[in-house]
This record gives sequence, C-alpha cells and structure tokens, in this order.
Amino acid sequence: MSRAQRLQGDVAATGGRRAVERCRRLSRPPYSDAPDALYRGYLTPAHAATRDQLAAWMAEAGLETRIDPAGNLIGRYPAVDGVDAPVLLIGSHIDSVRDAGAFDGPLGVMLGVECAAALQAQRRRLPFPIEVIAFGDEEGSRFPAAMLTSRAVAGVLDPRHLDIQDNAGVTLAEALAGFGLDVQRFASARRPHGSVLAYLEAHIEQGPLLESEGLPLGVVTAIAAQKRLAVTLTGKAGHAGTSSMALRRDALTAAAEAVLAVERVAREGPADLVATVGRLAVAPGAPNVIPGRVEFTIDVRAGRDEVRDAAAPRILEAIAAIAAARAVGLEVREVQALAASPCDPALTDRLAEAVAATGQPPRRLVSGAGHDAMVMAALAPTAMLFIRCADGISHNPLEDVIVQDVERALEAMLRFIEGLAA
Amino acid sequence: MSRAQRLQGDVAATGGRRAVERCRRLSRPPYSDAPDALYRGYLTPAHAATRDQLAAWMAEAGLETRIDPAGNLIGRYPAVDGVDAPVLLIGSHIDSVRDAGAFDGPLGVMLGVECAAALQAQRRRLPFPIEVIAFGDEEGSRFPAAMLTSRAVAGVLDPRHLDIQDNAGVTLAEALAGFGLDVQRFASARRPHGSVLAYLEAHIEQGPLLESEGLPLGVVTAIAAQKRLAVTLTGKAGHAGTSSMALRRDALTAAAEAVLAVERVAREGPADLVATVGRLAVAPGAPNVIPGRVEFTIDVRAGRDEVRDAAAPRILEAIAAIAAARAVGLEVREVQALAASPCDPALTDRLAEAVAATGQPPRRLVSGAGHDAMVMAALAPTAMLFIRCADGISHNPLEDVIVQDVERALEAMLRFIEGLAA
Repeated sequence: MSRAQRLQGDVAATGGRRAVERCRRLSRPPYSDAPDALYRGYLTPAHAATRDQLAAWMAEAGLETRIDPAGNLIGRYPAVDGVDAPVLLIGSHIDSVRDAGAFDGPLGVMLGVECAAALQAQRRRLPFPIEVIAFGDEEGSRFPAAMLTSRAVAGVLDPRHLDIQDNAGVTLAEALAGFGLDVQRFASARRPHGSVLAYLEAHIEQGPLLESEGLPLGVVTAIAAQKRLAVTLTGKAGHAGTSSMALRRDALTAAAEAVLAVERVAREGPADLVATVGRLAVAPGAPNVIPGRVEFTIDVRAGRDEVRDAAAPRILEAIAAIAAARAVGLEVREVQALAASPCDPALTDRLAEAVAATGQPPRRLVSGAGHDAMVMAALAPTAMLFIRCADGISHNPLEDVIVQDVERALEAMLRFIEGLAA
Repeated sequence: MSRAQRLQGDVAATGGRRAVERCRRLSRPPYSDAPDALYRGYLTPAHAATRDQLAAWMAEAGLETRIDPAGNLIGRYPAVDGVDAPVLLIGSHIDSVRDAGAFDGPLGVMLGVECAAALQAQRRRLPFPIEVIAFGDEEGSRFPAAMLTSRAVAGVLDPRHLDIQDNAGVTLAEALAGFGLDVQRFASARRPHGSVLAYLEAHIEQGPLLESEGLPLGVVTAIAAQKRLAVTLTGKAGHAGTSSMALRRDALTAAAEAVLAVERVAREGPADLVATVGRLAVAPGAPNVIPGRVEFTIDVRAGRDEVRDAAAPRILEAIAAIAAARAVGLEVREVQALAASPCDPALTDRLAEAVAATGQPPRRLVSGAGHDAMVMAALAPTAMLFIRCADGISHNPLEDVIVQDVERALEAMLRFIEGLAA
C-alpha cells in the first residue's frame, strides 16, 4: 500500500463517520419540520435551516457556496489554476418524505462534501472543478410533483409544473418568494449542455439486495421506470345508520377493492414490478357517514419500461370494472411518468473499478427507487453508487447504515475522482 | 273545522316555512366552521354564532334563554300562572358532521321554537312549562364520543368521557373554557328524575322509507342498537420502489381487505343490519411510501341488540384473520355501544294520534340513526317524529325537505302538545 493509498483510507475513515453523524444531526429540529419525526419539505423552514448549516460545512471543506434559482445549494471546489473546465457534479437531495430516515438523500450530499474535504486536506486541485449540489426537491416532499429541482438543472422541466400548490394552498411561486427566489427565474437553474463532465450520486440502496448478499456497496446500472397516477372515486355520501347495504354507493369499499387490484396485478407480474397505494384520503371522513369520495395515488415501477407500461393499463382496467360494478364515478390522472434511465456505461465501469479497488466486489444492480441521477442523465453521463442499508428499510425512521460501509463508499468515490483526473 | 283548528293550520304554514328557512340560513358561515360546506363542531366558533342567533330567535318566540353546564342552549316557555310543574322538553342537536346538510338536527330545534311561537301568538299558557333544548353534541362532531351533551342532561355520562381531545389536541376542558364553561361542572347539566314530563324530538328520517311510501311523517317506535369501534393496523413502512411485493407488510392492503370484510358481514346479515367504515387514515401517507399504519372506524347498527351483537364479533374475527395472514399488527378499541332504545309506547300512541289528526297515516318505523331521544329515554318518556327527506339523503349537502311536510310536522307537534295539556 502506497502512502497516498493509506492517506485515502484514513481520510475515508474520518470523513465517513462525519458524514453519518451529520445526517443524524439533520434529522431533528430545526432541520425537521416535524417535532418528533423527520420531515423536511421543499422550501420550508427546515429546508432553510438545513441549507444554512450545510453551507457552513461546505465552506469548512473549502467550497464556495451559492444558491441556484431553483433553491439548490451548490458548493464549488475550484480546479487547478482556476481552470474553467466542465464540472464534476456530486450530489443528491436534502428534502424528505414524512416520517423519514436520516440517510435517504443527505448521505450522498455529505459524501460529496467529504470528497472536497479530503482533496482540500491534501491541498489537491484537479483539472476540473467539483461542485457538490444539494437538490431541494426529489421526493415531491411538498408539491404534487417530484424531482422539480434536478429537472430544472437538467433543463427537462415542463413549465406547467410550476403552476402547482401544496396541501395548504401555498403556490410554488409563493414558497419560492419566501426563500428569496422568483418562480419566473426557476427554469434558469438549467445548466448548458457540455458544462457538466459527469454526475455522481451516492445513495442508500433502500432495498434488501446488498444486505442479503453481504455486500457494502453496489453499482447502479439503471433506474427503474416509474408511473404515478391519481385516482378519484365518487360515490354517494349518506348516513351510516339509515342506508341499507344494498342501496349504498360507498366510495371507500370501491377504493378497497381498487387497492387490492393494484396489489394483485403487481403480484402477478415479473419480480421487478411493484405497485403501491401510498396515499388515500376519505371524504367526508366521519365515523357515521358513508364515504362519498376517496382520492388515492398509485405508484407503479419496474426495471423495464415495457413491464411498467403493461401493468398500468391492467390496473386501470380492473379499477374501471370495480367502479362500474359499484356505480361509482372514476377519474384518473397521470401525475408523472419517468422512463427507465440507464446510467452511463463507461462511467459505471469506472465506478465499478473504483469499488473493486477498495477490495469489494462491484455488485451491479437496478435501482427500484427514482433518483435525481435519472433526471440528470439528460444533461450529463451519470454514475450511481449504492450503500447497503439495514433490513432494506427506507422512508422510515428505522433507516440505518453501517459507518464502515459509508467509509468504503467515500474511499470508492475518491478513487473514482482520481481515475477521472488521471 | 273549528276556528282553533284553522288557526293551528295557519300557524303551522308560516312556522314550518320559517323553520326551513332558518335551517338553511344556519348552514353558511358564520354558522359553519367550513367556508364552502356545512360543518358545525361542538364548542367551535360556528357553534357560538349559532347559539347566539338561536337565542335571539327563541327570545322572539317568548322563550327565556339560558346555557346549561354542557353548553346546551335552553329556551323556557313558562306554564300558566308560573306553575313549576315537570317540563315538556322539545329538542334536537345543532352540531353537524362534515359536509353536512342543513336539516339534520336544527330542524327539530326550529320546530320546538315554532311550537312556542304558536302558543305565544295565541297567548296560550299550558299547565306545564315547555323548554326547547339545542344540544351541543350529538354527532361526535369534534371529540371521539357522540351525544355527550344529552348524556350529561340524562345523567348517564361516564365521567371518563370528559378526558378526551379533538384531532388538533384540544381537550374538552379547554374547549369548554373557551365557551365560558367549566368541565368540572359538566355533569351538573343533569336533570333530576321526575323533572321532565316528556321529551319530544322531530327529525328528518335520514332514510328512504317514508319517501318510498309517499308519506310525509313517521312515528318512531325505537332507535337501533349501535356499536362503534376504532381499529389500528400496523405494518411496516418502506420505500414504494424497492420493496418486492412478497416482502411487504402493507397496512393499507390489509385495511382494504378489512373494509370489504365489514361490508360482507353486513350484507350477509338481516336487512336491518348495516356496517360502515366512515373514517380511514393512512400513515405516513405519501405516494412513494408503503403505508405503515392505518386507523379506521367501524359503525355497526341493527334494529335489535342481538343482531348487532352477533355481527360485531364476526367482523372482528375476519379482521383478525386478515391481520394474521398479512403479519400486520391489530388493535381494536370499542368507542361506543348503545343498546336499541324503544320510545315510550303511550307517548308514541299519542304522537300517532296527533299525526292522524292532521290527515296523514301515522306510519310507525325504527330509526337506523341514533338520536338524542335514545339517550333521553333514560330520563323521561320519549316520542319521536320523523319527517320525510329527499332521496333518503342525509349527512350530505344534498339533504332536503319539502316545506309542506315540515308544516304538517309542526301541526302534529302542536296537536300532540294540546293533547298532553288536555
């Protein structure tokens, strides 16, 4: 082992632990909008507090910070001699679902900061700048659309998506204004083609595969195709005590059959197909009133577009039959459709070599979860590193990682960067 | 037709129309807590506004008003020569479910006020006082318990029910304090046995029977047995994209099977058995998160206690089997159990005679809905008059009545009062 290799291992050991500790620290108020659990919505007070703390950590690591027009925090580590070459972007998101875990998103950002910190410690400048980016919205944490901020950066944002509001009726324009930003300038977060050398994202696996095979790291070859639908069933509200069972048009019993149809179609499909009803709201929602309206979401994913595209119509046919049989009105809206997104093959090979150099087998796998990387693929070659997580649990306060795995991830990322610079 | 009879008919014509108009007026802000629909919760600002407006109308009708320790508004029409005999109580409730109709509750109160107005117009005093009572909580409109205020008046309130809070975490004690009331004195709303001559309640049917038979009025013989349960299913939250279908413990798919089991058991039972899941909440409730916890209510009713008591365990057995098969945790709490409550036979005969005297057949029927009358039966003989409603619709903004039916109801009530005084 050379002196440089030892140094890299030492840096990874301290940096990996620090990255994990910082993620944990960001999982509590003021970095969470909820008092007892982690919820960090896009453009909320918790987002602002996180932005400020992260900017301070970035500055310590030698990064020059700025906020882009979509509210993303960016820290720049300049190239050697101030060369203005295309940048290596390293990042992930800092928003979260409700009742989230500490690592989904922030871990990738912290590892980007640690890459810069390691280079600064060695007083190393590379032939390209590095920018660490903390995306503000990946989860659709507040508004009814996900990956708003990476779509802005990649220049693939449909402008109609800016005319949205959160559950409290606050528009995106208002939320941005509260953050000192202007919705009219949102799309100018776009980066020119050719300005980004590569996009690298590290993320917890959020699934059980690496753990089941006893591996700390994985190399992502592609991100699964996703489709998200919003369904409304409209029956007839009525008094729970006086309407005979035969005469009811109960929107909730219809929705219950629909939820089970979603599950059945996914179970009958290939192993990479999953479908979930994650949100379901009943109106009027009183114990003694027959539900008149139920709104719910359907999330369908598969490793291949064809599998997803075959499943969604089967689900909708089943729901249409249920609605017809129960004389309940049906409305379906496609909220989002994302094609399966392959990572860049050459960059993925480089990342696999970097993982192998740490002494770990570079297990290649498809990501079932969506990531900013799938959007960033429209702008630049992407590579994605997965880190084993406990019990495959994510989107849950029990989400956890092993510090040593994170240290290995940082070491692999530093080797990847060295390879790119060579 | 005597002069007195003609007068009664005229009074009923103007009073019935006014009662309907007042109910409609009370269905909008400031008498509703919701801007676009009717929701009047117990001890809310809308309740206070309604109390004040109703007190003014009571005063116009010659009633002396007061608020009892449970927040019920009472208007007293004194007996002849200030005699302090047991009172005839006429009333119903002024709280509402969410997205309510205008007539469920308030119509009975308005008709009580019109009875007094008609007597005052004739300068008639009776050998007993009349008190019109507007109960504050019948629907369980705010706190997780129904008929709190009639239970207090009837002296059948379990003191444990006072230690409750609404969805926003406001305790009953705090809500009462905001109304100028003291939770410690709540139970003293109780009236002594023997102090109430009879309790008379007029109410929309909230079902389709009278309309299907072309009848404006019905005489209630009994109120159905009710049971209300709260169920919590606990699975495992997780990322919707990365957990294979086979490994999930989805609380919502389990709840969907439970909702259908509730429906199936009720459909398989006798015609008077109904069961409803009216409220269902999913946590964490994000489109891309597998539900980890679902809470829902079950409302079971039947004309006979035995039918209800046979159905509830069958439902719970089915749900327990579902939870076991899906490895999901199950918790069941009985929120409320009300026995079937017969109205007083002699008083019901009197009411039937009064209805017949208006020229209408006195159709006798069981009420599937619960009413304050079922609680008040513990304190005094009760009689209950049903008024036909449009399409059997209730607990819905489409709730409606025919003005002429309400006029007939008022005429029947006045004849009932005359009969009692004779």
